[in-house]
Amino acid sequence: MKKGLLFVITAPSGCGKGTLRRALLDEYTDIKFCPSVTTRQPRPGEVNGVDYTFVSVPEFMRRRDNDEFVEWAEVYGNYYGTPREDVEKALDEGSIVILEKDVQGARALRRVYPEGIFIFILPPSMDELKKRIESRGTENESEKTLRIESAHREIADLSDFDYVIINTDMERAKDRLAAIVLGERVAHGLYPC
Amino acid sequence: MKKGLLFVITAPSGCGKGTLRRALLDEYTDIKFCPSVTTRQPRPGEVNGVDYTFVSVPEFMRRRDNDEFVEWAEVYGNYYGTPREDVEKALDEGSIVILEKDVQGARALRRVYPEGIFIFILPPSMDELKKRIESRGTENESEKTLRIESAHREIADLSDFDYVIINTDMERAKDRLAAIVLGERVAHGLYPC
Repeated sequence: MKKGLLFVITAPSGCGKGTLRRALLDEYTDIKFCPSVTTRQPRPGEVNGVDYTFVSVPEFMRRRDNDEFVEWAEVYGNYYGTPREDVEKALDEGSIVILEKDVQGARALRRVYPEGIFIFILPPSMDELKKRIESRGTENESEKTLRIESAHREIADLSDFDYVIINTDMERAKDRLAAIVLGERVAHGLYPC
Repeated sequence: MKKGLLFVITAPSGCGKGTLRRALLDEYTDIKFCPSVTTRQPRPGEVNGVDYTFVSVPEFMRRRDNDEFVEWAEVYGNYYGTPREDVEKALDEGSIVILEKDVQGARALRRVYPEGIFIFILPPSMDELKKRIESRGTENESEKTLRIESAHREIADLSDFDYVIINTDMERAKDRLAAIVLGERVAHGLYPC
């Protein structure tokens, strides 16, 4: 059993897990975020080493073959991995660690860290989910259709998750996320009060 | 703004909201549960005044006409109401108040108490939901079909809820519920520490 506490935040594409995570970290500076390593291109506003660690495919493969990932997966043609050393070190130090993963990555992590707290972010309705994915400018039509289909499949089985937060608006969703983190910290004796 | 904090627990039929609530109250004795008033028959193990306040139809109508309910509804041929005085008094006193409502009742309450914390309990998958409703002995076949259909509709729009707890097993679900209550209490300055 590690001394720290691991939270994994997951959401279907376009449902704001990145925005939520940034808002949480801005407010709670003692939470440690471990960015995933990825071969995908940065989106506007994403900072290397902050949001993700962006690497080339050969570099990703080198790290993978060197067993540097807790889990890794190919999602929509890009590779994503969770850096083992960062996460283990932070947990050993007793930190509150947050990871941001797609559903596939979260399921893989659940097997490695069964005692982690897995949080799924969901838009208030299926219609709203479709709307959000469609309104995002970063994918083409066939990619969007694929993401909507995936989202439906993902939501049908939530057995690997502990909590779902309904993201009606970002500010409220952030407060909900903070309350879960706070509640679990207190429950695990990791709240400084 | 009331001094207390209101939590509303909701679940589709057969998903254990009563069991969860009882487990939470056993552990946290300073939480106040306000039972709903209903005209339905008690189920085995349900205690009058503890789980529900069981009344006759004329008595329910008398209370309704006397404006004693925050909200009331007819669900599957029975009446359910939320007793205004109990809830208001407990909130005025600064208590942590828990209500247990069906989806219809929760949506009505959301309009009365927009600042309340609304929690939806969900089985890990749609298949599991069907299984749980089917395995319960208290309804006949057509009632069960009706409840499964309702559950699907209810889950498609979660916009009135703040949190969803995935109920994979009762003990874990109770810890999750407790963590949400704890986190919101701390966030609202109502945690005695």
